[in-house]
Amino acid sequence: MNALHLKDLSASAQEAIAAARETVAGLHAELPRNDLVAWTAGNVSARVELADHEEVGPDGLSAVFVIKPSGVSYDELNASNMVVCTLDGVKIDDDTSIGLSPSSDTAAHAYVYRHMSHVGGVVHTHSSYATSWAARGESIPCVLTMMADEFGGDIPIGPFALIGDDSIGRGIVQTLQASRSKAVLMDRHGPFTIGADAKEAVKAAVLCEEVARTVHFARAYGNPERIAQHQIDALYARYQNVYGQKDNT
Amino acid sequence: MNALHLKDLSASAQEAIAAARETVAGLHAELPRNDLVAWTAGNVSARVELADHEEVGPDGLSAVFVIKPSGVSYDELNASNMVVCTLDGVKIDDDTSIGLSPSSDTAAHAYVYRHMSHVGGVVHTHSSYATSWAARGESIPCVLTMMADEFGGDIPIGPFALIGDDSIGRGIVQTLQASRSKAVLMDRHGPFTIGADAKEAVKAAVLCEEVARTVHFARAYGNPERIAQHQIDALYARYQNVYGQKDNT
Amino acid sequence: MNALHLKDLSASAQEAIAAARETVAGLHAELPRNDLVAWTAGNVSARVELADHEEVGPDGLSAVFVIKPSGVSYDELNASNMVVCTLDGVKIDDDTSIGLSPSSDTAAHAYVYRHMSHVGGVVHTHSSYATSWAARGESIPCVLTMMADEFGGDIPIGPFALIGDDSIGRGIVQTLQASRSKAVLMDRHGPFTIGADAKEAVKAAVLCEEVARTVHFARAYGNPERIAQHQIDALYARYQNVYGQKDNT
Amino acid sequence: MNALHLKDLSASAQEAIAAARETVAGLHAELPRNDLVAWTAGNVSARVELADHEEVGPDGLSAVFVIKPSGVSYDELNASNMVVCTLDGVKIDDDTSIGLSPSSDTAAHAYVYRHMSHVGGVVHTHSSYATSWAARGESIPCVLTMMADEFGGDIPIGPFALIGDDSIGRGIVQTLQASRSKAVLMDRHGPFTIGADAKEAVKAAVLCEEVARTVHFARAYGNPERIAQHQIDALYARYQNVYGQKDNT
Repeated sequence: MNALHLKDLSASAQEAIAAARETVAGLHAELPRNDLVAWTAGNVSARVELADHEEVGPDGLSAVFVIKPSGVSYDELNASNMVVCTLDGVKIDDDTSIGLSPSSDTAAHAYVYRHMSHVGGVVHTHSSYATSWAARGESIPCVLTMMADEFGGDIPIGPFALIGDDSIGRGIVQTLQASRSKAVLMDRHGPFTIGADAKEAVKAAVLCEEVARTVHFARAYGNPERIAQHQIDALYARYQNVYGQKDNT
Repeated sequence: MNALHLKDLSASAQEAIAAARETVAGLHAELPRNDLVAWTAGNVSARVELADHEEVGPDGLSAVFVIKPSGVSYDELNASNMVVCTLDGVKIDDDTSIGLSPSSDTAAHAYVYRHMSHVGGVVHTHSSYATSWAARGESIPCVLTMMADEFGGDIPIGPFALIGDDSIGRGIVQTLQASRSKAVLMDRHGPFTIGADAKEAVKAAVLCEEVARTVHFARAYGNPERIAQHQIDALYARYQNVYGQKDNT
Repeated sequence: MNALHLKDLSASAQEAIAAARETVAGLHAELPRNDLVAWTAGNVSARVELADHEEVGPDGLSAVFVIKPSGVSYDELNASNMVVCTLDGVKIDDDTSIGLSPSSDTAAHAYVYRHMSHVGGVVHTHSSYATSWAARGESIPCVLTMMADEFGGDIPIGPFALIGDDSIGRGIVQTLQASRSKAVLMDRHGPFTIGADAKEAVKAAVLCEEVARTVHFARAYGNPERIAQHQIDALYARYQNVYGQKDNT
Repeated sequence: MNALHLKDLSASAQEAIAAARETVAGLHAELPRNDLVAWTAGNVSARVELADHEEVGPDGLSAVFVIKPSGVSYDELNASNMVVCTLDGVKIDDDTSIGLSPSSDTAAHAYVYRHMSHVGGVVHTHSSYATSWAARGESIPCVLTMMADEFGGDIPIGPFALIGDDSIGRGIVQTLQASRSKAVLMDRHGPFTIGADAKEAVKAAVLCEEVARTVHFARAYGNPERIAQHQIDALYARYQNVYGQKDNT
């Protein structure tokens, strides 16, 4: 099999990928800044649709994704060392990330992109509070309005899965498809989050840790009451439609 | 109804509003700096009295307030994207915050300004420890001299209220009017604080989280004893009169 | 009574005081940097011996101390706004701190300097973990070699005392005179630390919070065993004599 | 005995030592940055093989190590004040670290280098969560995939040992030789970590605190299940071989 190379893609596809590498490199800075990662752990990826760029090359590529290189420290990340992969998780060579492998979590990201077409960004961390819920195999109950807004209910637990095949990806997808949540806590491993784009997935990772921490504290001296389902539904519906600058009147 | 525009106000009113936008933008930096907010959550507002500036225009405006735009990240906040609102929470257009909506918590801020005339600033956060008390629906007992100084007693719990009408604002006002505290913990939501100006409200938000954290820790291994009421009264009276640079001899 | 003024002191005394103001202003930066203070809470002071500078003026001043101004934020502190006081806690006027009062904790610092002649620096904070032990009125048991090194044993609790007279100062002195510790946890208030100079007192404040935190965590799942007294004694003796750059061979 | 001096070594040995001093000074910045140390506590060292540089001088030196000077603050560390020692922990004089003693933990580092020939770097901290497990004399159970990856199982407890002779070094070596872990929690003292080089030992110190914290949180509300031994083995084997940029295909 001939290795794919970035320069074999159309100019417009290359441009879209270059923009995504810039974005993904920049978003990685949010992970240490929000205390979500230690050392080189954690990664962000973004899907790039190629169909928009008339790209159906010899490999019939309709989309690729951009992800962190493995084992590189956060200080050293920039657009040029971000790795580009096919949706099968195979690296597409380029002239700047020579010798770098994609994140060891690449297979899980790839599985999510293949099976959840509305997902444009995926984030994985080992943030401490979220991971502590994962270590107990326990979902986070929806006892805060912020959880209802952002996650639409509880943050669910995914199965225990070893790295090395599609087990982790399958566990993420199955759990998230049965929930409104953008975050899943993989058993004894840590959180994965998704979004329409990479920035939304990073936001979900930040807020997942935030609510994991707050509910951890709350539970120390009693069992906070779950918000009633119809109230969760009302908060979630409103947040999807009104929050931010989508609906200015 | 014709939309109000900032340029319809008197020059002196516009100047006062410009100064407030500068102040409020700057104070937002204290929120992430003191670990009170995650992502774009949290907001600061400040009242601007217009009567002082001979402003009673076609709408009979006697005051307005300046507040954070919705969903904008803390790095991007500056005086020019702060949003100006009437005390009914309606945006007053201007030439620099075009397309930006005021914070989704604007109705709550507006309600406070309409019903508590001595309040010049309002702050809302989801700071973790304060919100964890809110998640249990539990007030923070006054077991620290710092609480007696700043809050004059316990920090009370407000009702559970959904966003979308005046419920949150009404809950804040009713709770604070029954207390000496500048902070209220809204049930399963988070803290709101008030002050004579926006800086005082920010200080109250910082110290609310500080005492929420310290009392959370203290309670892990026993029940700290509440300070006697007459001692709380003495500390509170002294702090109001002596602390800081108000009374130099 | 005529107010004292800095310019009435000898040139060499003024020089010593100027150096101390520089040092004390700089050391304040260690407080927020080590997460020991919220907002403007917390203060550092340093004694300046005047006898060395042939200073026994009309007031018979043999020493003064330099302390933080009240209610001023950490960003705004510099040598010129540090306040100089007599050992009775009365401000000595100068040309740069005009209009500023000394910290509201000045009387406690002054009492310590008057009654503990070997103390050259005093620090007060409300650091969260140390204050949480204070809130329970509980001393920190010596279960870490770092505590034996730095504090020579348990960190003791002082009495509950209201601000406004010598109660706090007296409680600090009586507690520390009965202990080897450089730190005392004032009941439901917070830690005060001392040192041969201000830097040592700041170090004690940093390490007091560190051990308060670590022992807080340790105790969550069992009762850590106190180090045997003869081992504490051996560690403490060694640390006083060998650590740092005092004894290079 | 004549004191050794750096300039007595071969030019190529001096060059290798100069490079190590640069590296070790730089790695110390990771300790405060990752919240592993308070004040001047904590230290990093790196072995330098001299045999590669044809160095077997009058003292038959085959290797030395570079370590932090005692009691110097993290801001003031740089290559020129790093101290060079023989594997017996005796300082080798040089022209830039004049008057500085090596870290008070030097004997422990030296013992490790003498008895574990594959170790190229050693780190010691008092990081709070790891030290809290040490205070209870309790090993950290392997309930996270990150622990299986990095430590190959539980993080073990070492004996209680006083500073001043080889007790600490012996305790570290005996415990680590009976384990796959790169970290040991010395009873009521704190963690020591090792690595093939100093950067790996720093990484182990960062991840040791990370898993100590996460498992501390997890245990608050239940007992997280240990990962099955064959799964730990699979994760550990994979991580040694695949992770990072060692194996690019």
